[in-house]
Amino acid sequence: MTTTTDHRPLPLLILLGWACRVFCANALVRAGLNVRVIDKRPVKVAAGQADGIQPRTIEVLQSYGLADKVLSQAAFMIMAAFYNPGPNGIECIGRVPDVTAPTARYPYEVTLHQGAIEGIFLDSMKKEGLEVERPIIPVSLQISEDPKALADPHAYPVKVVLKHLDWESGEDTETVRAKFVVGADGAHSWVRKTLGISMDGEQTDITPSEKTDFPDTRNKSAIHSVNGSCMIIPREGDKIRLYIQLSNKDAVDPETGRVNLHRYDPKRHVQAIYDGCALDKVEWWTIYQIGQRVASRFTTNERVFIAGDACHTHSPKAGQGMNASMNDTHNLAWKLTHVLRGWADISLLKTYEFERRKYAQDLISFDKTFLHYSRRKSAMTAKVTVQHTRNLLDHRADLSAAASNLIIGQRLLPHVLVRAADAREVNIQDLAPADTRFKLFVFPGDHTQTVAAYLDNSQRFFYKRRDAFDVITILQGTKSTVNYLGVPLVLRSHWTKVLLDDTDITGSRGGRIHERYGIDRFAGALVVVRPDGYVGTVAPLDKLATLDTYFSGFMLSD
Amino acid sequence: MTTTTDHRPLPLLILLGWACRVFCANALVRAGLNVRVIDKRPVKVAAGQADGIQPRTIEVLQSYGLADKVLSQAAFMIMAAFYNPGPNGIECIGRVPDVTAPTARYPYEVTLHQGAIEGIFLDSMKKEGLEVERPIIPVSLQISEDPKALADPHAYPVKVVLKHLDWESGEDTETVRAKFVVGADGAHSWVRKTLGISMDGEQTDITPSEKTDFPDTRNKSAIHSVNGSCMIIPREGDKIRLYIQLSNKDAVDPETGRVNLHRYDPKRHVQAIYDGCALDKVEWWTIYQIGQRVASRFTTNERVFIAGDACHTHSPKAGQGMNASMNDTHNLAWKLTHVLRGWADISLLKTYEFERRKYAQDLISFDKTFLHYSRRKSAMTAKVTVQHTRNLLDHRADLSAAASNLIIGQRLLPHVLVRAADAREVNIQDLAPADTRFKLFVFPGDHTQTVAAYLDNSQRFFYKRRDAFDVITILQGTKSTVNYLGVPLVLRSHWTKVLLDDTDITGSRGGRIHERYGIDRFAGALVVVRPDGYVGTVAPLDKLATLDTYFSGFMLSD
Repeated sequence: MTTTTDHRPLPLLILLGWACRVFCANALVRAGLNVRVIDKRPVKVAAGQADGIQPRTIEVLQSYGLADKVLSQAAFMIMAAFYNPGPNGIECIGRVPDVTAPTARYPYEVTLHQGAIEGIFLDSMKKEGLEVERPIIPVSLQISEDPKALADPHAYPVKVVLKHLDWESGEDTETVRAKFVVGADGAHSWVRKTLGISMDGEQTDITPSEKTDFPDTRNKSAIHSVNGSCMIIPREGDKIRLYIQLSNKDAVDPETGRVNLHRYDPKRHVQAIYDGCALDKVEWWTIYQIGQRVASRFTTNERVFIAGDACHTHSPKAGQGMNASMNDTHNLAWKLTHVLRGWADISLLKTYEFERRKYAQDLISFDKTFLHYSRRKSAMTAKVTVQHTRNLLDHRADLSAAASNLIIGQRLLPHVLVRAADAREVNIQDLAPADTRFKLFVFPGDHTQTVAAYLDNSQRFFYKRRDAFDVITILQGTKSTVNYLGVPLVLRSHWTKVLLDDTDITGSRGGRIHERYGIDRFAGALVVVRPDGYVGTVAPLDKLATLDTYFSGFMLSD
Repeated sequence: MTTTTDHRPLPLLILLGWACRVFCANALVRAGLNVRVIDKRPVKVAAGQADGIQPRTIEVLQSYGLADKVLSQAAFMIMAAFYNPGPNGIECIGRVPDVTAPTARYPYEVTLHQGAIEGIFLDSMKKEGLEVERPIIPVSLQISEDPKALADPHAYPVKVVLKHLDWESGEDTETVRAKFVVGADGAHSWVRKTLGISMDGEQTDITPSEKTDFPDTRNKSAIHSVNGSCMIIPREGDKIRLYIQLSNKDAVDPETGRVNLHRYDPKRHVQAIYDGCALDKVEWWTIYQIGQRVASRFTTNERVFIAGDACHTHSPKAGQGMNASMNDTHNLAWKLTHVLRGWADISLLKTYEFERRKYAQDLISFDKTFLHYSRRKSAMTAKVTVQHTRNLLDHRADLSAAASNLIIGQRLLPHVLVRAADAREVNIQDLAPADTRFKLFVFPGDHTQTVAAYLDNSQRFFYKRRDAFDVITILQGTKSTVNYLGVPLVLRSHWTKVLLDDTDITGSRGGRIHERYGIDRFAGALVVVRPDGYVGTVAPLDKLATLDTYFSGFMLSD
């Protein structure tokens, strides 16, 4: 029986996919939005493949308060080891830090299986009252072509028909009208295909995955031999994963030209690569081809978006897939929130594809280098830097001299401060949580009254939109002497919002953030951080009006 | 209707009390023991008073894996501020670190209300399948006088009659036979009174508690004025607590000589002390007298024990009460476990009163100093050091020169090591969790084979009792070069048990533990840590046989 209903108009609907979808749903429901999440699977992922989480992604998880939950369960990759053929067989030629970026707050990568990561997001969503509806598949998707509806943030221009696979009430389809739809539905994305978006790129590689007990197994390790190469990734508990790069002769049936799993024996292959390697139980293995491709578009009319594997696929060995996916929706979620709240013009949504397409393409270039890591240690280490191309959100680089070591379009550099009221150490990144607000970090220098007067001026942009901003003040002085009640009220909405450029109680962490950020102690600066943790702009305190220009580029003042 | 039943013989029964009782129950059930916990209250504590948790107690909580849960909810006291009368009214004369002990792993105190602390233990117990039975009160307690039964760890010489206050089945009393009973049932302990144990000490003081918004409220602060003195303790969220020392005229009715709550106005009193202090809502206040007393005995025949407030009471202002209570049962729980498992002779239980009585008495001396803190900053700062008087568990101080900076009878000094297999930083205290085992920390120096041969010798004491021990090996060398598989198998039961004396990946934490502990890099040493985290003994590697002497003093080898 098929019944079509038309009920529950909704601002948003998230489709399929896993970590990326629940990441997005979690971000949106925390922002108080009305979201539905559907999934074709009848139950959540129980275990699944291990996935690498990179330093910047850990920072992003921390901005949602979820890093601790991930780190407490994950395996850590701190060192990278390299084994090459030597006169007496395979030899360790060295171990180096896996993460070389000196600015990394978390100087390591971690691995955790999909089921655990998804579970962390599902728990967080559930606290906000949102659960995944399953098993449901979308069967049709239409977007209005009416320009007026498309431009109106109050309109519901998307119509999706959903099919409930075990609907108990007798209906098995329903029609949903939504303001926006996000298709985070994987490499074979139904949303992408329905929108007629092509994937551009090439097939390049085949690799298997398995488990063993190799001598250097708790580090990320690259082993090269005359019989082939493999890479080790530590996993939770005592498990490890091996990536082995195969040639066609290893697994392709010469008659059919297709991969034949029965032709391949991973245990034998690993022993051929490293003779002394005693393999323990092989828990799971597979062979797959890697496609490195980017979708031709990431959106249709900024009403339906695709994210994650739905719009770019990568080498799993680089551990970038899940990281890129989560960061896609991290970028999109706050923009949708600002538009739906009426804080920002709907055109803000154009910056999603602009910012994330460049990232996806850079990643594929990195992937290609990575797949040929054999001769270069550095290519195997993790990236932390993302830098957006200049756009309406990341602009006025000419002003950034006021904080000469910060780069507009990159994430806010982590640094330890001390809270003035209770001397507790706080990483400045934790003062910029993913709570959908722009953060104004005020380093007042000698201009406290100037900044206070500016922020208190009812003509100013963010005075009118004060819900969209959080003001944090960073004073000079020590925890033994500063009386933070001397700061004007507009610069301290709460006692936790006044920080000191001082070391923690042990004297071993923090201090000298002015020098770290390149801010003059007399001139000061105001640093604007976007809701996703990236530096939006920097204002010298004698040019605060540039902030009005910046925000009026995308925000609505009434 | 009263029915007496006699069923479910049980090794242990914990009575009443709150944090101390659930701390004890949690420790015992984690050790796999059969425990019952009863409580006279029909429901758990919802909120309750704030309680201070001291640096050493945080270390102990960490050894049970519970520190993070406490710290994430607690208010921190990092600095202590001092206000005295000056020419222009009350003035801040300085702020100093609240914790001055240079060895503190957690260089601060924290405060958290009783309901939250109790909840953390209840959750942990529940994971092991143990819940508090309530509302139940004990109505009689008898201990066998048969010396044979008292000496037999398999006997059930204690008989307790319990009364169920809302028994649904019709029975309202039951008789329980137990091997041991712990009465952690508070200052008015029924167990103590039933055992006929007196409390020796004196009444000294009265103080109220309340809430305000004073300028230096997020630090521990002492304010002195001609109109009296008060102390501020920050609490969770924005709340604070004030302790005000009253004279008899403030609240005692001259006619009756008793405290009369209606005679006292805390708001007025605070303003008299500090004129500029704007008081916000007073949420709760009380007046109470402090008794500083110690029980004449802590046990009857080492079969029924009292712990916490049941055997010693203190000034709440010193924040010692709960800390002392939890540490009492931390001391007792592993000893009971060893006796019940047949690992230790029942005489081990005599060390409970021996070690904890001295602590309780020291604490009362500290309390008395604390109550007169007005002229001395240092007396207001927190202690971290506990040192047991020498006894069968903490002996052979003459051998401790092998680790000249460790003190037998004090806790293992915290220090950061690096795990050899994956370069992850680990605090050495976290290698000595409260899992009821003795830890053998091997610093092999040039004597790896000597230690390995000793530990592998089937004639040796702990070879026969290997379940009671965990061996951890600390190597010299760097994370870039050491191959931990070179260590003999008896020194590495798992890849997580081999550590390096090296810095973490950032180079900012750890390294030089040999120098920190005073261990020669060639001679090495073996450090024995008790299940409660205190150093039991130290053996030079050329006198390893002293370990047999140490352990045979209380452990049973068959």
